[in-house]
Amino acid sequence: MVRHEGKESFAVDNKAGKNGADSNRLHAPEARPGVIAAAVYQNGKRICDIPIGDAHHWRQKENTVIWIGLHEPDSVLLAEVQSEFDLHPLAIEDASHAHQRPKLEIYGDAMFVVARTAHMMDGEIIFGETHLFVGRGYMVSVRHGPSTSYNLVRQRCEASPAALAHGENYILYSILDFIVDNYMPVVEGIHEEVEELEERVLRDMLDKKDIERLYLLRRSLLRLRNAIVPLVDVCRRHEHLELPGMDATLHTLFRDVTDHVRRVQEDIDTLREVLAFTFEASLMIGQSEQTEITRKLASWAAILAVPTAIAGIYGMNFVDMPELHMRYGYFAVLATIFIVCGGLYRFFKKARWL
Amino acid sequence: MVRHEGKESFAVDNKAGKNGADSNRLHAPEARPGVIAAAVYQNGKRICDIPIGDAHHWRQKENTVIWIGLHEPDSVLLAEVQSEFDLHPLAIEDASHAHQRPKLEIYGDAMFVVARTAHMMDGEIIFGETHLFVGRGYMVSVRHGPSTSYNLVRQRCEASPAALAHGENYILYSILDFIVDNYMPVVEGIHEEVEELEERVLRDMLDKKDIERLYLLRRSLLRLRNAIVPLVDVCRRHEHLELPGMDATLHTLFRDVTDHVRRVQEDIDTLREVLAFTFEASLMIGQSEQTEITRKLASWAAILAVPTAIAGIYGMNFVDMPELHMRYGYFAVLATIFIVCGGLYRFFKKARWL
Amino acid sequence: MVRHEGKESFAVDNKAGKNGADSNRLHAPEARPGVIAAAVYQNGKRICDIPIGDAHHWRQKENTVIWIGLHEPDSVLLAEVQSEFDLHPLAIEDASHAHQRPKLEIYGDAMFVVARTAHMMDGEIIFGETHLFVGRGYMVSVRHGPSTSYNLVRQRCEASPAALAHGENYILYSILDFIVDNYMPVVEGIHEEVEELEERVLRDMLDKKDIERLYLLRRSLLRLRNAIVPLVDVCRRHEHLELPGMDATLHTLFRDVTDHVRRVQEDIDTLREVLAFTFEASLMIGQSEQTEITRKLASWAAILAVPTAIAGIYGMNFVDMPELHMRYGYFAVLATIFIVCGGLYRFFKKARWL
Amino acid sequence: MVRHEGKESFAVDNKAGKNGADSNRLHAPEARPGVIAAAVYQNGKRICDIPIGDAHHWRQKENTVIWIGLHEPDSVLLAEVQSEFDLHPLAIEDASHAHQRPKLEIYGDAMFVVARTAHMMDGEIIFGETHLFVGRGYMVSVRHGPSTSYNLVRQRCEASPAALAHGENYILYSILDFIVDNYMPVVEGIHEEVEELEERVLRDMLDKKDIERLYLLRRSLLRLRNAIVPLVDVCRRHEHLELPGMDATLHTLFRDVTDHVRRVQEDIDTLREVLAFTFEASLMIGQSEQTEITRKLASWAAILAVPTAIAGIYGMNFVDMPELHMRYGYFAVLATIFIVCGGLYRFFKKARWL
Amino acid sequence: MVRHEGKESFAVDNKAGKNGADSNRLHAPEARPGVIAAAVYQNGKRICDIPIGDAHHWRQKENTVIWIGLHEPDSVLLAEVQSEFDLHPLAIEDASHAHQRPKLEIYGDAMFVVARTAHMMDGEIIFGETHLFVGRGYMVSVRHGPSTSYNLVRQRCEASPAALAHGENYILYSILDFIVDNYMPVVEGIHEEVEELEERVLRDMLDKKDIERLYLLRRSLLRLRNAIVPLVDVCRRHEHLELPGMDATLHTLFRDVTDHVRRVQEDIDTLREVLAFTFEASLMIGQSEQTEITRKLASWAAILAVPTAIAGIYGMNFVDMPELHMRYGYFAVLATIFIVCGGLYRFFKKARWL
Repeated sequence: MVRHEGKESFAVDNKAGKNGADSNRLHAPEARPGVIAAAVYQNGKRICDIPIGDAHHWRQKENTVIWIGLHEPDSVLLAEVQSEFDLHPLAIEDASHAHQRPKLEIYGDAMFVVARTAHMMDGEIIFGETHLFVGRGYMVSVRHGPSTSYNLVRQRCEASPAALAHGENYILYSILDFIVDNYMPVVEGIHEEVEELEERVLRDMLDKKDIERLYLLRRSLLRLRNAIVPLVDVCRRHEHLELPGMDATLHTLFRDVTDHVRRVQEDIDTLREVLAFTFEASLMIGQSEQTEITRKLASWAAILAVPTAIAGIYGMNFVDMPELHMRYGYFAVLATIFIVCGGLYRFFKKARWL
Repeated sequence: MVRHEGKESFAVDNKAGKNGADSNRLHAPEARPGVIAAAVYQNGKRICDIPIGDAHHWRQKENTVIWIGLHEPDSVLLAEVQSEFDLHPLAIEDASHAHQRPKLEIYGDAMFVVARTAHMMDGEIIFGETHLFVGRGYMVSVRHGPSTSYNLVRQRCEASPAALAHGENYILYSILDFIVDNYMPVVEGIHEEVEELEERVLRDMLDKKDIERLYLLRRSLLRLRNAIVPLVDVCRRHEHLELPGMDATLHTLFRDVTDHVRRVQEDIDTLREVLAFTFEASLMIGQSEQTEITRKLASWAAILAVPTAIAGIYGMNFVDMPELHMRYGYFAVLATIFIVCGGLYRFFKKARWL
Repeated sequence: MVRHEGKESFAVDNKAGKNGADSNRLHAPEARPGVIAAAVYQNGKRICDIPIGDAHHWRQKENTVIWIGLHEPDSVLLAEVQSEFDLHPLAIEDASHAHQRPKLEIYGDAMFVVARTAHMMDGEIIFGETHLFVGRGYMVSVRHGPSTSYNLVRQRCEASPAALAHGENYILYSILDFIVDNYMPVVEGIHEEVEELEERVLRDMLDKKDIERLYLLRRSLLRLRNAIVPLVDVCRRHEHLELPGMDATLHTLFRDVTDHVRRVQEDIDTLREVLAFTFEASLMIGQSEQTEITRKLASWAAILAVPTAIAGIYGMNFVDMPELHMRYGYFAVLATIFIVCGGLYRFFKKARWL
Repeated sequence: MVRHEGKESFAVDNKAGKNGADSNRLHAPEARPGVIAAAVYQNGKRICDIPIGDAHHWRQKENTVIWIGLHEPDSVLLAEVQSEFDLHPLAIEDASHAHQRPKLEIYGDAMFVVARTAHMMDGEIIFGETHLFVGRGYMVSVRHGPSTSYNLVRQRCEASPAALAHGENYILYSILDFIVDNYMPVVEGIHEEVEELEERVLRDMLDKKDIERLYLLRRSLLRLRNAIVPLVDVCRRHEHLELPGMDATLHTLFRDVTDHVRRVQEDIDTLREVLAFTFEASLMIGQSEQTEITRKLASWAAILAVPTAIAGIYGMNFVDMPELHMRYGYFAVLATIFIVCGGLYRFFKKARWL
Repeated sequence: MVRHEGKESFAVDNKAGKNGADSNRLHAPEARPGVIAAAVYQNGKRICDIPIGDAHHWRQKENTVIWIGLHEPDSVLLAEVQSEFDLHPLAIEDASHAHQRPKLEIYGDAMFVVARTAHMMDGEIIFGETHLFVGRGYMVSVRHGPSTSYNLVRQRCEASPAALAHGENYILYSILDFIVDNYMPVVEGIHEEVEELEERVLRDMLDKKDIERLYLLRRSLLRLRNAIVPLVDVCRRHEHLELPGMDATLHTLFRDVTDHVRRVQEDIDTLREVLAFTFEASLMIGQSEQTEITRKLASWAAILAVPTAIAGIYGMNFVDMPELHMRYGYFAVLATIFIVCGGLYRFFKKARWL
């Protein structure tokens, strides 16, 4: 996945450097490891790709936004980004090692947003983490782990320059929307597995493999929930954030994201509860199964005890056992055994023990 | 169901076009797919049916409300409606594909309401979704899935023109009230099933089919709850909404709807808890059942072990076994067996193991 | 119960019509079905009984309150009451069919209160519903279901005219206090049953009847809780209600009711939790019981397998079995069997399996 | 316990009546039943003991506080106290019969506080109830049930006159602090029992007695929790109460009590959760135990089935059974039996079934 | 651990006494038991170590902060500290005996902070408690139990004098940050154990030792949670605390600590839920295991009952049993037995009972 990400920064290379105000400073896009893309947009149009070190030249310009996409940058690269945009050291420290809670923090006039991403790969849920530094005139996204690249977001944004002209906040919206949208197929994938498991549990007792599956689904949902719940809060705060460039249009867009993320959360909560029901149904089915087996066992034990007991008695070696000398005594006993066993069989059948 | 909906728009056709201010623009009602009804009301009276494309002519008039009912409209139809009423693109996007959370959103001076509907069909709960666009002088309802048509609401509203003269907010109230009312028979249907299951669980152990029924009831209640809980919030917000035309009378009506929806929620919560009790009672009954069977099994095993053991001993082939040569030895042993078995039987009976 | 209610309205008849300001309008009390009592009080003293239709004559007078008690009135009667006191149609609609959530609603300067009542009858909890219309100078109580009559409340109020002189709010307090007080014996009745069940569960495994009892107690507590919890809210709101005639004294009285109803709720919650503990203890006892039985079964099976196996061996028909020809061989085998069985018995006894 | 309480009121008798402003009104302390102590303090020093009926003479004085301790007073005594201090009838009604929720109520310029007390006696938790009437210049404590006397509190207060000079609020603090402190040994006692039970549950399956113990501990903790949780609220409200004589020092003291009572609550909650874990661990241990037994039973049944089956076959009476006539046939069969049984034994041992 | 702590106060001795304003008052550092370190910092630089008794001389100076580290001080030492810094008696009382809830309390212009610490030692979680007295110009830390010394914090602070120049609030931040950081390896340690247990539970039934491990992990997490949850609140309050010297920089730092502590809490909650899933999975696996065993037991019992029953019949001693005299009768019976048993075996194999 990461391999493909490299491509785009070359692909868009041709478009770059056209109407840049500072075109003499224009460099070829860096193939620098960790940098996925770094471009300058004016009025919603990509005007050039820049090396990280040139970012500060572009920050002061009107209607201009620098959008840099990093993937697991090393500390040198992060330090450079920090100095270009005067980012807060604590935010940079957080960004340097993944495993943060999703959150939104304001440092002066800059925003630091952490979100967890999820996508399916080979039937496994892969979690990643994205850190976003957003400030007047720039957006730096830092991805950790094997998350999906945001080049798709970039392409979509570039496809609607009017919207992109809203600047960094629109990019922020686009990325959050993309992250939340990517949760949906994951949740749907789990949904299908849950439904399969449901059918199974109602058909028969779960075997060990099903129980393991059930267990792992519950864990996955727990992790998804941990990723989503603080994100709801992050999105909701954006709805009411008073920042330069955050107008009613953007607030409406963020409200839409909040709505999506809450629906994802509702779906996750529903699945969690369904799995709890599945657990309880499985306990009941198991108990009912065991009772059934015990009943069957008891019934057959009773039926088979009859020939054993009767035969045992006529196997005794007493000298004086009159039945033994009767004619057809043997056949009478056989008949008795069959009749009693048959009677018991019918009795248990009627009682639904067999 | 959809077939019948078409009828009404013809039936009311005769009444249309009487005192319309703009009667020269009057068209025959469209048999257009997706449009269930589209009519203009002035002071609570239906004055004509209109094609969607004429809606904008009627929007500016005093005391006039356009009420359009759509069912799973295609994107062309939705786009037309959007342009007629200047609806917000995000709301239209939501309306174009079902599966939204119940919600109330304000876009400028327009309102977008999403509700989930439920009704019973052949013993199954059928869920649908309704999206309502409400603004000054218009109400557009968009139904998704096999929900009940709102023609009944329309008939009721037309039957009380004084109330309908309140305009779009009264229609909104009527539809929400109708949706909530339709939940009641669904909940009652589940209620009956739950009571049946309750009786069963206390009479005997649940079999697999009962467990499946229990499981499915819990799922249904979960889905109902997911549909109802956000609706409570939607209704409650209407109680205090400050919109043009929202007077104290309407607030009181909305409070009444809130009250109904909360009662439905309470009923659902009660049923959920009752089913949880049922689950626990079933576990206990099952455990008690199994203990009883094990006790019976043990008792009979003990009783039947007696003839086997005694007969076995006298079946041995020792040369010197004095009992074997006694007169009536055989009968004495038979008697012993009967006495011991009878004693054990009485013992277990007393101990309530049998 | 309803039979007795009729009596009071006759009994108090004699007192009526003494110092009524409008005594010429005084009518004999109606034996009208649905009307339990309808009287006018001035400065806390009952001055006359009136037919419903005369109520509006008394409403405007100073220091006068009309107190009407209805039981399952038909729609005609309700309509009459509505027109006499200008009651809100929605409240009347609610009052006409029972099964409302306990609530307090303000319609203009009138209050509509719904409460659920409970009392024990023949060991069963009987739920009823009371709707109260309270406004300046009147109190109309509408009982549904077999609830206790409020004549006792009336008698108590009439016994303290100074308090009753506070008017309709004091009557409201008295009725709510009476309703809450009536919950207490119900909760205590359940409390006793729970304690009985507790003892039982710790003594032995619960049988099916106990489990049913446990189940039904949990359901009853759930229903009680549903009735009580919204009532807490209703009472608490009265503590701070700013209405004409609601002074600090009444607020203190309502605070006292709130306190009582909260204690009832606490008791219910405690009982619910105790029953949950009982369920869990029952599961544990059941499991321990079953383990014990299985152990016993296994022990006896082992002990009884010894004679069967040994006797089986010496029952074989081999020509050459030297033991069979030994003197006392038989007795030696018998002794061996006894010793081995006895040893096993002692072994299992020591291991506490027997 | 009550016997000892009587002593103190005599013991302090000697100190009384020294610098009382009104020393001519001084009476010998009453040995009146229900009155534990009744003394007047000026500037933190006990100046005399008084009969209840003299209290009103002392109420108006500056820097004076009357502290009366009652134990299960009869209605006559309560009425007298009420009239001396103008206590609110509702508070008096509450105080006359125990079983109130812990609460803090303000009646005009007087406070009514209810708290539940707990102490251990012979391994049992004894619950009591204390009602406190606090107002300008007086503190009346009413104990119900076998709670610990507050003479210890009185002694401590008298030992620090500077603090006691703060008046009735300081006494209130001292009593609440004492009540909360007395919870600690109770909780610690339960803590020890819980730890004992924990060890037991991990060592072996719980027997019926342990299960009963577990059950009773859970109930005790529930009762303690019910007593403590509303007390947290009572204490917290004192932290911010604006009353005459309630200064920052006292607020700090009350904050300290709140802190203690919250720690007690935390301990109770922890113990409750630990017992829930114990229940679950016990279920697991029980299940594992039962599986083990079933495995053993199955293994031995299989082993013992071998001689029975083989011996049965050679016990048949067919005329033509060649093995029976073989030399050493008998011994060969015996050997076969031993080998097969031994093999099975080793097999089950390896599989950890034995 | 405590032994090593002593070292540092000597080690830093050399640096002391250089640019102290009051160098004539400079003493050698005390080897006094309970005092780990006591130093004065001016503008972020350690200028000298002081005996406790000299602290008041340094308190009034500008840009000066006294940092004293105590470990389980006796009451004499605590009293001395109290008088030097005018600490509130209640705080000192709390500090003298450990086992407080984590909390933040303000006494006038001083702050009292309680935190619980945790670290792993030999696979055990060791809990400690730290009490911090923070006021203008001083920080006194009091450690209880075997917690990690704060000399590491001191070293780090001394390494960045610019930060330390912020004074006591920066030290407070550093200590809280250190405490929270120390939780992380503890939680990670538990995390690893939980994962081990997870694998085990899905592979096989848990044995007693695993169940004990599971139980103890749940208890540990409960204790950790009790330590962490109030700490979240303590840290969050610091974010908004308006104290002298608490500027935006410090608020940002405290926000960072809050963030860390919340992540620890989230991790703990996740582990708690995972262990609950583990418990449920274990129940299911156990039930499935037991059903399997019962099935096997029943199958083998059925198979082995065949030879016993048939052999029993032909072991009877009837005179007239024609089969006994047939040629090959014996072999026919043997064959029958084998065929029936084999058939049953295949039957059970197919039904997956074997």
